[in-house]
Amino acid sequence: MNDYDQIKVHLTSKSKEKPPFDKLQFGRNFTDHMFVMDYKEGLGWHDARIIPYQPLQLDPSAMVFHYGQSVFEGLKAYLNTDGDVLLFRPSENMKRLNRSNNRLCIPQIDEEFAVEALKRLIQIDHEWVPNGEGTSLYIRPFIISTEPFLGVAPSKAYQFYIIMSPVGAYYKEGINPVKIAVQSEFVRAVKGGTGNAKTGGNYAASLKAQESAEGLGYSQVLWLDGNEHKYIEEVGSMNVFFKIDGEIVTPELNGSILEGITRNSVIKLIKHWNLPLTERKVSIDEIFEAHKQGKLEEAFGTGTAAVISPIGEFFWQDEKIVLNDHKTGKIAKQLYETLTGIQKGTVPDPFGWSIPAYNTSKKATAVN
Amino acid sequence: MNDYDQIKVHLTSKSKEKPPFDKLQFGRNFTDHMFVMDYKEGLGWHDARIIPYQPLQLDPSAMVFHYGQSVFEGLKAYLNTDGDVLLFRPSENMKRLNRSNNRLCIPQIDEEFAVEALKRLIQIDHEWVPNGEGTSLYIRPFIISTEPFLGVAPSKAYQFYIIMSPVGAYYKEGINPVKIAVQSEFVRAVKGGTGNAKTGGNYAASLKAQESAEGLGYSQVLWLDGNEHKYIEEVGSMNVFFKIDGEIVTPELNGSILEGITRNSVIKLIKHWNLPLTERKVSIDEIFEAHKQGKLEEAFGTGTAAVISPIGEFFWQDEKIVLNDHKTGKIAKQLYETLTGIQKGTVPDPFGWSIPAYNTSKKATAVN
Ligand SMILES: Cc1ncc(COP(=O)(O)O)c(C=O)c1O
Ligand SMILES: Cc1ncc(COP(=O)(O)O)c(C=O)c1O
Repeated sequence: MNDYDQIKVHLTSKSKEKPPFDKLQFGRNFTDHMFVMDYKEGLGWHDARIIPYQPLQLDPSAMVFHYGQSVFEGLKAYLNTDGDVLLFRPSENMKRLNRSNNRLCIPQIDEEFAVEALKRLIQIDHEWVPNGEGTSLYIRPFIISTEPFLGVAPSKAYQFYIIMSPVGAYYKEGINPVKIAVQSEFVRAVKGGTGNAKTGGNYAASLKAQESAEGLGYSQVLWLDGNEHKYIEEVGSMNVFFKIDGEIVTPELNGSILEGITRNSVIKLIKHWNLPLTERKVSIDEIFEAHKQGKLEEAFGTGTAAVISPIGEFFWQDEKIVLNDHKTGKIAKQLYETLTGIQKGTVPDPFGWSIPAYNTSKKATAVN
Repeated sequence: MNDYDQIKVHLTSKSKEKPPFDKLQFGRNFTDHMFVMDYKEGLGWHDARIIPYQPLQLDPSAMVFHYGQSVFEGLKAYLNTDGDVLLFRPSENMKRLNRSNNRLCIPQIDEEFAVEALKRLIQIDHEWVPNGEGTSLYIRPFIISTEPFLGVAPSKAYQFYIIMSPVGAYYKEGINPVKIAVQSEFVRAVKGGTGNAKTGGNYAASLKAQESAEGLGYSQVLWLDGNEHKYIEEVGSMNVFFKIDGEIVTPELNGSILEGITRNSVIKLIKHWNLPLTERKVSIDEIFEAHKQGKLEEAFGTGTAAVISPIGEFFWQDEKIVLNDHKTGKIAKQLYETLTGIQKGTVPDPFGWSIPAYNTSKKATAVN
């Protein structure tokens, strides 16, 4: 990458105080710097730079405030025992960002350049990668439409940002099983909509159902398809897997489900372990029926924020089923340990998923 | 309203140059001032103020950039021949803003206060209301989520803004008939989603279809329902009406269509004129069939931006039907003239829709 060397770097004159790494919340603290790049029609993406973390200045008519044309990604960096920083499958996130861009009429980015820019940002802020159990550096690339114009049309100007946040567990339950309410009134997404893109509107649409689930004492929502309210889509910000009668099943990608990178990694691991797995339509009836017959062995969500989140209970139409006595299932545990192990470089990585972003030896070289 | 007097006003020291009122575009120029009010959990809405139009400063993690929690409105102010400024049904917009707020988990605003705040803003910027044929002052109230936090949940902080833009015609066609492509792949909204709320995500989702319609030489998209791709929902940013065999029909409100204020006004006017009108399901087959039988007399869109926009052509599944020889129909014309007449105070206003926001005589009083 030649462009990579052309990222202008303007370092902060005063590093912020870091939060205590053993008491991290999720998404509340941000590192000293951020990456920014501009887009203008006719000019393309330009002016890539790393600058001190600072407020954005946008015209009140900037399109993102009105017409929601925005996309984002979420990935994590981990510290290994040698003090190196590892990224988990970062190219997959940049690929998905481009798929989201396509759906939202946002110009494509150079995926390779974006990964290199991220590495550069991590090198600069490497002291912000936390080292405690369950902690990581959460990375949020996002693109917003910035043209100052009121009128429904694709924006002619954008900004691409990467910000980073040292984080602890996403769910207060940690790796303990969560309780899930099945949603049958509100719809997250439908085929032909934006469900398989990572864009703000999907999350805005989900808040009302999330609020009602919490009102019932459940921490997450399980979404059903928008047409028949019958087939399982996903859970909150996670894809979902079930183990039924020895077989692992997960809803097939259908155009309205987000194509999770953790989902993809879980499928690859399970196949690598030679366990039976099927991607297909899964109805909520089937799950409740399997439970009645004593065949529902496990359920868990998969996503970058929580990695693997075992499910201990489902609530649907006044009926409640408890899985595994609210304990973490065997597959969920094995997946969690393997995935977090690969992410931190403590277990073998047969797929080459962990990508070094910064290593301590490099630093030594740079000093020479 | 007591609160009304408590709006802090900070006037600009230097008025911007106004664009030539006879060459106005839509949504490109903004007046000298804007209204702002903050919300914080525990504190409620507070610190209402009118300040010079200026960039917003927001943390890069402000939730609106990531999770799309935002709502907006659109309404217009007109200059009448006495130099008074008239608002068209502003309370309806603030009511709808609150319905949108409810769907998006945004705290309710005081509707009456919002209208008063708008009037105050118009008084200050009254010289920006243009006076040419087809021009008006477009008003954009909007609310964005501002809490600096990465995590899917309702924001704990918001800002409510009103900005204003002197505008000309929304469509380059003006009152001339537009050509519409029926969309059967992409979906705008579905029952249980956010289609009946005025929130950014709906518009972001619509861009891709809009782009493909334009590629085919059509200026707008007609949306079908998200389940069966069969029933007509609305057109671009307009509700839609048809005259079939002497009867006026419009899709009924079904939870996924925006409840247009122009739609409501058109229904009231048509009933006032004792013409037959039905709100019901209207399938796209019915429209094409009616055309074949020579019974499709008119079609037009209704919305604040264009008021009434006659439709001259529909394209669907490789078939194209032309209405009225691409000429504006009788009902569309009558509605356009009556509505714009009421809006500008040149024809009687039996419903009390036009609300004075600023009048020249008041100004004289103020000077005494
Ligand atoms: C709606 C939704 N589904 C699924 C996922 C899981 O995707 P990934 O494993 O790539 O984090 C996420 C989170 O990114 C999400 O927001
Ligand atoms: C999706 C959509 N439908 C319909 C309308 C028409 O609504 P109104 O007549 O209130 O402007 C609008 C514009 O506001 C809109 O954005």
